[in-house]
Amino acid sequence: MNNTPQPTAAIVAIGNELLSGRTQDKNINYIAQELNELGIKLVEVRIIPDNHEVIIRTLQEFSSQCDYVFTTGGIGPTHDDITTECVAKACNTTLSLNEEAKRLLDEYYQREGRELNDARLKMAYLPIGAELIINQVSGAPGYRLGNIYVLAGVPRIMQAMFQALKPQLTTGPKTANAVISALVAEGDIAKPLSDVQDLYTQVEIGSYPFRYDDNYGTSLVFRGIDAALVEEAAALIRSFLQEKGIKITEDYQDK
Amino acid sequence: MNNTPQPTAAIVAIGNELLSGRTQDKNINYIAQELNELGIKLVEVRIIPDNHEVIIRTLQEFSSQCDYVFTTGGIGPTHDDITTECVAKACNTTLSLNEEAKRLLDEYYQREGRELNDARLKMAYLPIGAELIINQVSGAPGYRLGNIYVLAGVPRIMQAMFQALKPQLTTGPKTANAVISALVAEGDIAKPLSDVQDLYTQVEIGSYPFRYDDNYGTSLVFRGIDAALVEEAAALIRSFLQEKGIKITEDYQDK
Repeated sequence: MNNTPQPTAAIVAIGNELLSGRTQDKNINYIAQELNELGIKLVEVRIIPDNHEVIIRTLQEFSSQCDYVFTTGGIGPTHDDITTECVAKACNTTLSLNEEAKRLLDEYYQREGRELNDARLKMAYLPIGAELIINQVSGAPGYRLGNIYVLAGVPRIMQAMFQALKPQLTTGPKTANAVISALVAEGDIAKPLSDVQDLYTQVEIGSYPFRYDDNYGTSLVFRGIDAALVEEAAALIRSFLQEKGIKITEDYQDK
Repeated sequence: MNNTPQPTAAIVAIGNELLSGRTQDKNINYIAQELNELGIKLVEVRIIPDNHEVIIRTLQEFSSQCDYVFTTGGIGPTHDDITTECVAKACNTTLSLNEEAKRLLDEYYQREGRELNDARLKMAYLPIGAELIINQVSGAPGYRLGNIYVLAGVPRIMQAMFQALKPQLTTGPKTANAVISALVAEGDIAKPLSDVQDLYTQVEIGSYPFRYDDNYGTSLVFRGIDAALVEEAAALIRSFLQEKGIKITEDYQDK
């Protein structure tokens, strides 16, 4: 899956509530932006249900194909939190009481004046070999097993976990990025854009139409590892637009 | 993939901009909610790059496993719009000029006083056998080929296309739904919830924690085809909460 010098990653967002439409995912875009900043290439995202077979199959597929797999959701204390048992099965290991996780939960619930009952203690039963991802927001830790990072589904907890694990990740060369937004309809810039793409095969050029007041506009995104090539490709398009007297405007995304 | 009497569906959101984090997807949740209303079960969502091999493989996988596949993105006039050629390949057919699509584009661009150039005409080259999804927002139509519905990436255009194709879909029995939000921490409701889940195996019970002011709360979602069973299961939990004097509150989702 990787033809760049960047490490690759996949995200697996787990939860029936995402598929029923009840919950609008807020984790995928957060992780995508973070990975982009780290020079890690996000190659695919899947949103899957709370279903053992699907979770295990998906984790095994991505774990063997990508450098990193991030899961969100399904690590709480209730019966529908099945991510951890699936991670163990996907990695051919079993769950056991993780003493450090138990200690963290103990401390957390004592501080909160709440009981560490059996349901909550379930969150300390982790796959053998799991390394905890400790965070300040939630008592229950996330964890890493092999190249799978298992994170919470609640965005503010997931974000705290991601920030905590971030220093562990091997980063790649950062993708250089140039954006030109212009008051030109996509169809009128398509030909020169395609010509530039043919010249610069190592630059990934994306074209995203938008409406701005009553005008048609297009945001042109140039991305690549080689910043000089990205700038060259963008400069050619900038020149074209200037020659044609087309207004370059602020970056904009259509809704 | 289907053990319910509902038709199944998958969504394939196509676009590098979704994986780079530049664009926050707004289509998945829209389609998920619509399918839920139609009694169609969304079994999986994938976000994949503008990559021929990945698009073709994903479409073939879902097309054979699900009743419906919805794609978003990659059907515009520029070089990075490769969805249509991939749909054709995935379905072992080829592209040809669709006369009706050409007529629609002709009309649209004449009305707009803009040129139907080669780049725009590309949007009329569709897989042989494609049935157009005509919409009022965009001149370029979406289309159906077999069980694959090919939609725009721009949300307002995608939505118009979805509304246009909706009457074609075979609906299933609608999922009955009961939600109880209560000021109880997830770990304190886990045991009774699990007991009720064991009793009502045909009801899918989800548990979603939230913070409300300084309180812990949990939204409990009961879903199933049999509305009476859903209500019974929910009633048991409502009784439990009332017995314990736990406050039932408005529906709430944590951020």
